[in-house]
Parts: sequence; structure tokens; C-alpha cells
Amino acid sequence: MAGITNYQWILQERPEGRVKRSDFEFRRSELRPVEAGECLVKVLYMAMDPATRGWMSASGGYLEPLPLDGPVMGVTIGKVVESRNPQIETGTVVAGVGQWAKYMIVGPEQISPVRTGSLGVLAPMDVSTGFELPMYLHAMGTSGGTAHRGLFDIAGMKVGDKVLVSGAAGSVGSLVAQMARLKGAAKVVGIAGGAEKCATVVRDYGCDACIDYRATDNLSAAIAREFPNGLDVFFDNVGGDILEAAIDNLAKGARIAVSGMVSQYNNSEPVPGPRNLWNLVVNTARIEGFLVGDYFGTPASEAAYREIAAWLKEGKLNARLDVREDFENTPDVFNQLFSGGNNGRLVMKVPD
Amino acid sequence: MAGITNYQWILQERPEGRVKRSDFEFRRSELRPVEAGECLVKVLYMAMDPATRGWMSASGGYLEPLPLDGPVMGVTIGKVVESRNPQIETGTVVAGVGQWAKYMIVGPEQISPVRTGSLGVLAPMDVSTGFELPMYLHAMGTSGGTAHRGLFDIAGMKVGDKVLVSGAAGSVGSLVAQMARLKGAAKVVGIAGGAEKCATVVRDYGCDACIDYRATDNLSAAIAREFPNGLDVFFDNVGGDILEAAIDNLAKGARIAVSGMVSQYNNSEPVPGPRNLWNLVVNTARIEGFLVGDYFGTPASEAAYREIAAWLKEGKLNARLDVREDFENTPDVFNQLFSGGNNGRLVMKVPD
Repeated sequence: MAGITNYQWILQERPEGRVKRSDFEFRRSELRPVEAGECLVKVLYMAMDPATRGWMSASGGYLEPLPLDGPVMGVTIGKVVESRNPQIETGTVVAGVGQWAKYMIVGPEQISPVRTGSLGVLAPMDVSTGFELPMYLHAMGTSGGTAHRGLFDIAGMKVGDKVLVSGAAGSVGSLVAQMARLKGAAKVVGIAGGAEKCATVVRDYGCDACIDYRATDNLSAAIAREFPNGLDVFFDNVGGDILEAAIDNLAKGARIAVSGMVSQYNNSEPVPGPRNLWNLVVNTARIEGFLVGDYFGTPASEAAYREIAAWLKEGKLNARLDVREDFENTPDVFNQLFSGGNNGRLVMKVPD
Repeated sequence: MAGITNYQWILQERPEGRVKRSDFEFRRSELRPVEAGECLVKVLYMAMDPATRGWMSASGGYLEPLPLDGPVMGVTIGKVVESRNPQIETGTVVAGVGQWAKYMIVGPEQISPVRTGSLGVLAPMDVSTGFELPMYLHAMGTSGGTAHRGLFDIAGMKVGDKVLVSGAAGSVGSLVAQMARLKGAAKVVGIAGGAEKCATVVRDYGCDACIDYRATDNLSAAIAREFPNGLDVFFDNVGGDILEAAIDNLAKGARIAVSGMVSQYNNSEPVPGPRNLWNLVVNTARIEGFLVGDYFGTPASEAAYREIAAWLKEGKLNARLDVREDFENTPDVFNQLFSGGNNGRLVMKVPD
């Protein structure tokens, strides 16, 4: 498609700790023609996901490490603007792992006419529920699916459970807290960083209380005050010291669902894990990790998204979007995930 | 019951590391009369269990810490020789957590006419299957129940799974390895300490291979050689570095059942945990702790013991007993659990 200028964020160096602008090239190029079997996708929105940080490292992600001199990858939503793949129609809205770029040309192995159970492949996104497109990267997309699957399928939350949620001001955690409330948790407590976020977590996301991990020097004791008889469910996407503090406070039969370990993604060396795993035996408890990609396209997933859509339409679920429009500053925006600079699901709108 | 001399192992000091003779008093006393509601139990056999070491510490066990100046507790089998409890008949064979002693007088809260789901209470043991009594402390008791529940219920082992077992020369591990084989595991590998134990594990306990953790400086790599595509099930009762090395080698959807952490019981300070819990997310895997006491008296438990009894009678399960008769040296015998000096389930026969 001659005459179209593309911009891509190209990974030049594997970052140490937080990303720097110089780890990337913001590459301008002319799009080559689309060949037989390929599609041209206009990227519309890119989710800023902590997982992307893991993929930038030589190891430590759940996909293969991103190659150097190739585009950064992240969960995106886009539209097929030219198709030479007979299975994909021009005009289809697709979502999945795509590029930090204005456009991407994808071969048949990178796009599927149906959800495959792999997050690494673009697939048509059903947007017939009529929400604004970024919502399909949030409650109607990976964040909502992660929250629902982790809380109900992995942790098996039941009516009357006492629930703790880390990253409670974040995209996944804020949904987990609200879903726990909607499904009859006896108590929901969030963990977040800073007084302002904690206030939001209680006011907007239905938590009974929020523990400010920056304002306590004994997180374990702070959790114990909220759960004197222990917690039944912990939904964790932070890991590290927060995970250890939660393991100190398990009720009998507790379940911990782990969807990520944000605290670990910027470490270049592995750090010691929780010293108290023995509590899993004492309390006959479990820790289980999961990836939402495995879940896509299953009947359980479809039922979950129907439930989420109904909650959204009834105004029961506050799914806050923090949409940015400075594509040319993507690395700086991305770092806000780790500094707490975002307020809701952080999404980059990609310019036309 | 005047005129009966009792001997009890009394805890005098909380041990540091391995137990010392001076941590205990071997107390001689005359039994007081049995009062209304009480039973007098003659202890016949005491299992030497690593868990007892945890109970001796100020914290860290799954029962309350043993009080100082009180008898050491452990899983025992005994016989009611006098009953003033109307629910318990004289002559009943009972098992559960009892004292390191020749005799014990137990109140109604310490003995139950039916299995209660708590290991901490003595209850009648069905010995109608006719095995020698120590077997009800091994394959027909807590070891067999721990192995069966952990492998099949907690780890959910299925036909074709590749299974790794730590402590494979020990009482629980040796049963786990054989049960995995009997139920169609595609591969069973043990971990044990020393060439002799490893030879036993392969020859007598049905393992395809055994990794000698004392003879390797890279346990993770040794496991990887046995499981190039990862392991499906890990049954662990050791913890520490062995757990971390196994977590390095998980197949997608792997399950780790943890019945104990022998490596930790002699530590006075908590030690760092596995640095690689992130692998639980990458491989959508879980770690689950359990206590066999919760399981007793359930229909699943009864079915498990019927299956174990049949395997024993058909000669399919090698449940080795290492019965000692030096009650007066119990602390030294107990330490052999941690030095690897036992050869099968270590049981102390209590003299008449």
C-alpha cells in the first residue's frame, strides 16, 4: 500500500530496570505492499501492560523474548484495512498481541478467524455490545477476563469469602474488587500505593478498606488487622513482599490467584521468594498462576464477558479508562505503570 | 491404676536445629488413677515424624507448639487398657497424635469414637485388614493417606503424567512413587540423598531414575535432563532448594502437592523461598499444601485405604518398615529422619 507512512517503536536495547527512551528507536518507514496471505492492520489502541516489560527482557516473560531491532509488542485493538488473507475480511476489528506501531502487516500465522486460546495471535473482537473501543482492552478485554477468571475460576471465590486484592487501583485489581463485591464477598480489602489511590479504591471500587503499602512498614500486620481470622482469597498481580505478607494471613483453605508479578518485571536478577510457603501446608492453601490467553474462546469466557457487559450497562462496574494521545511518548507513558502515574486502564490511542 | 510405672519423653528446652538428649527429660512416674471420662491408653508404636520437630518449636507447626515440661507428641498407635469414657470400649485400638510415652491418660476431648477429620485427636483404627500394627502408621496410616491424597486429590495425577517425587526413599515418597507407577504415570523420577538410597528408589520403589541431590551441584539441570519437556506433577515433602529446582522445570498446567518441608523444620529463622514463583504464571501451574488429618473419615479416604490394602495384599506396594526397639534412645532415633539414617517408615516399638 504505497504512500502510507508507518511509525513503529523498535526495541534497540534490553532495558535495565525501567525503560529509557534510548532503549527504542521511533522508526519512520514507508509501508511495503501487502502480499498474498497477509493483512494490513491499522492499530487503533495499544494497552500499556506490565507484561510487555517482561517480554523486553532476555527471559522472564510468558512469550518468547522480543527480538532486538523488532517492534515492541503489546495487547492492541485494530482494524483490518486491507486483506489478502481469504479468511479475514477487510473492516474486521481485531484484538490480541500486536505491535506498538501505527500499522502492522501480519501473516496468516499472526491472525486467526476465530479465538485460538492464544493471546499471541490477533483474532476478531466482538464489539457488538457497543462499548467504546478501549473498553475492549479493559473490562471487555484482557483486564476483565483476567479479573473474572482469576477470581472465580482460579481462586474459586464463593459467597461469604473474605477477599484481598493487590494493585487495587489498577485495571485488573479494580475490577477484581468490584466483582468480589458483586458476587457476595463478605469483605473486600485492596492494597494500593498512596493515599489518593487508596481513597479511590474505597470510594469507587467497592472496597471496605484499602491498605497503603507505602504508608506501612509492616504490611503483614496491616493485613492481619483487616483479616483477624485470615483471608480466604488473595488476587495478586504484584508478587514480592506483598505476596509474602498475604501468605502470613491465610485462613484455612485459602486460595491465591496470581495473574502477574509487577514488582518483579524490572528486576534483572531473581529475588528471594516468600519465606513462609510452609503456611500453605499449615492452612491447606494453594497458589495458582494463570494466563488469560488460555481462556479466550472458551464457553466460560463467553459467559464471563456476557456477565461483565451486563454489569457495565447496569452501571455496576466502574471500569475507568486512562486514554492517552501522545503516541510519540509511549515509553514514558509505559513507565507510569510502574510509578503509579496512571488512573485506570492505561491505553494509548494511536493517531490516524 | 496404681502400681504401673510410666515413662514419658518430656520436652524441657525448645531445640535449636537437631534435637539433643538434653532437650528432654526421660521421666519416670507412677500412673495416677483414671478418672471419670478418661481412658488409659498403652502406647504400642510411635511413628517418628518430621512434623514433631516443628511442634517442638515456638512456632512453625500446624498444631499449637508443644508446651515445655509436657510430653512430646507424635502419631502413635495404642490400645485402650482401661476406659471410664462411656463412648470408648476397653480393648479398642486407637491411632492419632499421642504422647512419646509408655502410657497416656486421655480426657474425652483427646479421643473420639469416630474419626473427626483432625489428626490431633485419637480415634479407633480399623485393623480388620489384618496387617501388622506398625503398618497402620505407614501405608495403612498417615503415610499412605498422605501419599494417596497428595498425588491423586491434590496434584490430580492422571494417566500419562510425568511425576517427580522428593524424599523418594522416605515413607511417604516411596509410596507416592509406587502409586504413580500403579496408576499409569508415563515417567516417575525420585530425588533422594546418597547412592544407596537412590539405588533402592529405582530397584524397590518403581522409579525410572533417581537424582542424588548430594551428588549434583545443579539440581535444576539434573531435573531438566530427566524432564526435557517439563514435569506434570511434583510431590514435595522437602521444600527449600529442591522445591525451587522443581519450579524451574514445570510443564504447562503442572501441579505441586506439598505435604511437608523437611528441609525447613530445623531452621530457627525463616529462609528465603523460591525465586522463581513467576514460573507458576508462565506455566499456569499451582502449589497446594495439605494435611492428611483433614482427610480422615471421609469417603475418599476410606476408598483410598481399600485400594492401598488391596495393593499391599497383591504385593504391588512395597511399604518398608524400620521398627526400632530402643525407646530409651528415642531422640537419637528421631534425628535419623533428618540425617537419612532410616530405611523405610521409622517406628518406635514401645516396650510393655
